[in-house]
This record gives sequence, structure tokens and C-alpha cells, in this order.
Amino acid sequence: MIKRLCVIGVGLIGGSLALALRRAGVVGEVVGCGRNRDSLARAVELGVIDRWEQDPSKAAAGADVVVVCVPLRAMQEIFRRLRGALEPSAVLTDVGSVKGSVVEDARQVFGEVPAWLVPGHPIAGTEHSGVDAAFAELYERRRVVLTPLAETAPEALERVEGMWRAAGSDVVKMEPEHHDEVLAATSHLPHALAYALVDTLARWDDRQEIFELAAGGFRDFTRIASSDPRMWRDISAANREWLVAALRRYQSDLQELTDALEAENDEHVLRVYQHACDERARFLKILEGRK
Amino acid sequence: MIKRLCVIGVGLIGGSLALALRRAGVVGEVVGCGRNRDSLARAVELGVIDRWEQDPSKAAAGADVVVVCVPLRAMQEIFRRLRGALEPSAVLTDVGSVKGSVVEDARQVFGEVPAWLVPGHPIAGTEHSGVDAAFAELYERRRVVLTPLAETAPEALERVEGMWRAAGSDVVKMEPEHHDEVLAATSHLPHALAYALVDTLARWDDRQEIFELAAGGFRDFTRIASSDPRMWRDISAANREWLVAALRRYQSDLQELTDALEAENDEHVLRVYQHACDERARFLKILEGRK
Repeated sequence: MIKRLCVIGVGLIGGSLALALRRAGVVGEVVGCGRNRDSLARAVELGVIDRWEQDPSKAAAGADVVVVCVPLRAMQEIFRRLRGALEPSAVLTDVGSVKGSVVEDARQVFGEVPAWLVPGHPIAGTEHSGVDAAFAELYERRRVVLTPLAETAPEALERVEGMWRAAGSDVVKMEPEHHDEVLAATSHLPHALAYALVDTLARWDDRQEIFELAAGGFRDFTRIASSDPRMWRDISAANREWLVAALRRYQSDLQELTDALEAENDEHVLRVYQHACDERARFLKILEGRK
Repeated sequence: MIKRLCVIGVGLIGGSLALALRRAGVVGEVVGCGRNRDSLARAVELGVIDRWEQDPSKAAAGADVVVVCVPLRAMQEIFRRLRGALEPSAVLTDVGSVKGSVVEDARQVFGEVPAWLVPGHPIAGTEHSGVDAAFAELYERRRVVLTPLAETAPEALERVEGMWRAAGSDVVKMEPEHHDEVLAATSHLPHALAYALVDTLARWDDRQEIFELAAGGFRDFTRIASSDPRMWRDISAANREWLVAALRRYQSDLQELTDALEAENDEHVLRVYQHACDERARFLKILEGRK
């Protein structure tokens, strides 16, 4: 049970968490915090939060759990505003898509990684954003990665883990570095590839015809290219090393495929396509097993 | 009105066309043709065709429209089997994803491009195949590209155009070469990229964790990597030059993006992401306008 939850950044992610915890009946009061007063008023109207403060230190006062749901670029500043404002028994967590950078931000602000900080990342979202897009079911059966460090207090980890389970998620624990490597492959790389494809085609001479003749396959393939560009610029920058490594690896394989196709080595092409098709079937079974 | 329609290759594409034309009430009898007797019997059972023949020349006898819905690699052989078997007034068309190769196949078999051949390509499909996946609505409001040549008889073109309109499609006409260039960008390139991505990740050491932590974005992005690998090997080979050109162009842009990211030129990264996001919004409006 969380007596008072403070959500800093009340959009799709933070708003949906508040709604899920309310629905589960595990939260007393929800205090929102953000920069846009209209959006905070809207969050109250939608029943996502009970009240709001614009100053993070005021919003966090008296809260037993503080969840920071702001873009990665704002993380360090929020930590700074929270320094000294948390209750001694409070737990701080976040939802950033990159964990190494959040740990580094905490180190910068607090001089060390505090025992009451539990970095986290729910693997959930839609291409929409803002509190109007929030819904209580967003985290149901979704994975949430928590990346506790040696410094993390077991009780803090337990409290954050309990919160995400109450929201309906499966909690997975791993090292921040390993999280960033895996997410580079599974999420950050596909985003970069989708953005790059739409950008490339849109600069083609035939771009109008290309879009006119594109269909459902193209729409699905490029759906993630409708995600917030600034947010993804930040994620890409925060996970620069792993993402560059993933991009280079992909490019080298793509080069090999292209060379094979050009050289009429169609067996190589088929081998790649068949392997991908088989492995995707395996992935779908894993996804299915989670339902 | 088509008195007798002959569909060679009764799967998702050919089966759905037969169902659509039946529903529109513009076809008398439908004769199927294929290699698998069980699948042909199933097509009769599903009401897709009235009867079947396994020999293309027998199936085409007495038909006023013959639609070839076989993989690109089988096209030339089917043309060969049809040579001399068509009624003098019959029209021949196909649904191949590459048009230059089909025109070349016809030239090889018939010594010229026959006046009664209308190469075509419906921009529709799902990742499923086989007659059980066929449905009458597949072509509704979808684009069908017809690529008539100078040799094509206007009446032949008109008849094939009428058939696709009756199935609910919008018909677009262009040169075969131009079709292949545009489709390389909009369809063949995304397929190659999706196959390459799943193949790359599946050869990663962390592949199990990668798949475990992948979510909806990854599922959508890789949906087309579940398409039939052999069919896509054939399409890639048949459109080799344009696809290689599209792949090289994409790779060069991706290289630039990767270099910019590595060099901390995050403005460049944002420019690419923002442009892609804006252009995809434009694409969605075009798609929306078709509904």
C-alpha cells in the first residue's frame, strides 16, 4: 500500500501507472507534478491525480513513493530539485528508457547512488503521448525492468517491485548496463531504422508515388517512426554507445545481404529470410506465452 | 461481366479475387488450377471456385479472363503451358509483385508481349497465405497497379481494369519499370530490412533476452518478416537491380545517421527523426484519404 504517490511528469506513462494503481486499490493519494498547468488540471479532471504542485520538492513532500516520468534530458534537473526534499523513508524510482544515464545522473546529483533509488523501465507504451492517452491497462502483463545496484536497499527494491506487480506487470531484474545493451537491440535500433527509412523515402524524387502505393505492411513497419522525435533523440544520445554498436552490427549484416543479392547468391538471401521468419515465429510464441 | 474466370494458383491472392468477383456478381463460373489437389478441393468447399483442373491449358479453355497468381519463379512455366490454349478473345493477366520480370517472361515464351496480356499487381495481402486465408474484402479500396505496354490492346486493359474495380480496388497505371522502382522502395526494401533485423538479433548472444524484452513496437516492425521467405527470395531476385539500389541508398543514409550519432551531432539525429515523423503523418493522411 502506497499512502501518497508522487508522479513527476503526468503523461501516458506516469498517468497510466497512477490509473493502474488506483484501480488496484493500492494507493491513497496521488500528487502530480509537471510544467504545464492545463495538462495537470486535465489530469485531475480525468481522475488520474488528486492534486498537483509545480515544484517537485513540494510535490514529493510526504510521499512514500516518488516516480519520475520525465524525458531523460530532464532527469538530472529533477533529481536536483528533489535533493533534500524526500521523506527519509521515501523511495525514488523512474521510468527512463536508458538506465546507465539515469544512474549517472543520480551519481552527479547525490554524489553516490542513493540506497532508496530504484531505477526502472516499463517496456510498454504507444506512439501517443500526454495524459489523455493514459489508461489503466497499459502495464498489464508487460515487462518492467528494474536495475538495482549493489547500493540499493532491499526494502526499496521490494516496494517498487510490489508497485509494478500491483499495476499488472511482470518484473525482471538486471544490471543497468545489460538493460541498455538489450534495449538498444530490441527497441532503440528498430526506432532508428524506422526513422531512417521514412526519412530516406521522403527525400526520394518519387516520394509522392511511394507514399501513394505504400500499404499496410509499410504502415506497420514505420509505426514507431511516429514516436516523439525529441524523446527518441534523447534516448539515442543517452544510449549512444550501445545504439551505435547495434547500428554498426546491423549495417554489416545488411551489407552482406545486399552484396549477396547483387552477386545473385540467392541461397544466402533465402537463408537470411528463412532464419528471420523462423525466429520471428519463436518470438511470437514468447509474446503469446505472456498473455 | 466475366463468363468464365480461370484462376491459376488459388491461394490468398487468387482466392480473394474470385470471392470478391463472386460477391460483386460479375462472374459466371470460376475454374481453379493448381498443383495441390487437397488445396483445390478445399477451394471448392469454401465456395472460392466451382471446379478445377490441374493442367493450366485445360483450366484456361473457354475462359474469357485468365489470372495467373503463382510465385514469380513459376510464371514463365505457366505462360509456356498456356501458349496456344487461350481463347482468341481471352485476356491474360497476373498479380506478380515485380512487373519487369513478368514482361520478360512473356517475351521469352511468346516471342513478343502479346496484345492480350495486361501485367498487374494488387497492393494488398496479409502475412498469411493459402486459400483458407482468402476473403472477399481483401481488395476493397486497395490500389492495383496495371502496367500495360505499347503493345497492349485497349480492350484487354479495359477488361482487366473493370475486373479490379468490381473487386473494389482503385486502379493505377504506370510503366513496368517505374512500378518496380517504386515498389522496391515501398515494399521490397522494408521486407529486406525486417528480415535482416530479425536475423541479426537472432544471431546475437543475448537473443533469448532480446526476444523476452521485445514488445509491441518490435512485433509491428517485424511483422513482414513473417512473410513467405521463398516468395520474397523470388521477389528480391526478380527486382534485383532496383532493390540493390534502394538498399545501397538506405545504407548510405543509415551510415550518415550512425556517424552523426557517434560524433554527438544530435541535431542531425533529431532532424532525421523529426522529418520522418512529419512525413509519416503525411503518409497516414494519404492512407486515410483512401478509406
